[in-house]
Amino acid sequence: MKLDFSKGLIPAIVVDDKTGDVLMLAYMNEEAYEKTLETKETWFYSRSRETLWHKGETSGNTQKVKSIQVDCDADTLLIRVDPEGPACHTGERTCFYRAIGGNGEVVEGDFSSRRIFDVLTEEIES
Amino acid sequence: MKLDFSKGLIPAIVVDDKTGDVLMLAYMNEEAYEKTLETKETWFYSRSRETLWHKGETSGNTQKVKSIQVDCDADTLLIRVDPEGPACHTGERTCFYRAIGGNGEVVEGDFSSRRIFDVLTEEIES
Repeated sequence: MKLDFSKGLIPAIVVDDKTGDVLMLAYMNEEAYEKTLETKETWFYSRSRETLWHKGETSGNTQKVKSIQVDCDADTLLIRVDPEGPACHTGERTCFYRAIGGNGEVVEGDFSSRRIFDVLTEEIES
Repeated sequence: MKLDFSKGLIPAIVVDDKTGDVLMLAYMNEEAYEKTLETKETWFYSRSRETLWHKGETSGNTQKVKSIQVDCDADTLLIRVDPEGPACHTGERTCFYRAIGGNGEVVEGDFSSRRIFDVLTEEIES
């Protein structure tokens, strides 16, 4: 079984191997995927710049690949990494630092820890 | 700040709220997103069937939304859910039940628990 690039770029979910937190999502073409396997660091394809992109090449915030999983349709990857510094270009540890509140509004803040999730959940449910 | 649907469908990463495991990735259009907010269950847009899709409508395996996070570019969602049964259409608990081995080959098996990840990591690193 091979990865299915027929529908275009493949989304890769990047998870912190130690904490289990989802850090970011980026896209891979076949070349980015091959480079990731070869170098054991994450490579993506930038949709806006339309170029191959070695994560951390300019920022130094590389991601060491610990494991790669593939989904049932072979068109999504789940990559567990050991991150060197923040994943997000804003300097946040994870790109998912904002949440959607109960009324659909965006709430700023680091919602990556379970504790804050619980608070947020209560907020959404109320 | 609103979600950015200008690049097309938005990928939604679905995570088990209790275990933190990534269960699946599916896509949302604006209608699916609105329905998800409204019903507090996951709705997606099926790229193959080109229709709105209420997860679990036929299988019964719905997902109760606990929280929704949005990434820095506002074009990816992270949804923590309380799943009613398996997330995957194959009957697996998570769609990510296969891994990529050290030589790029696909390895079958449930790689969703941390314990097995550790074994796999050693395999990849060796």
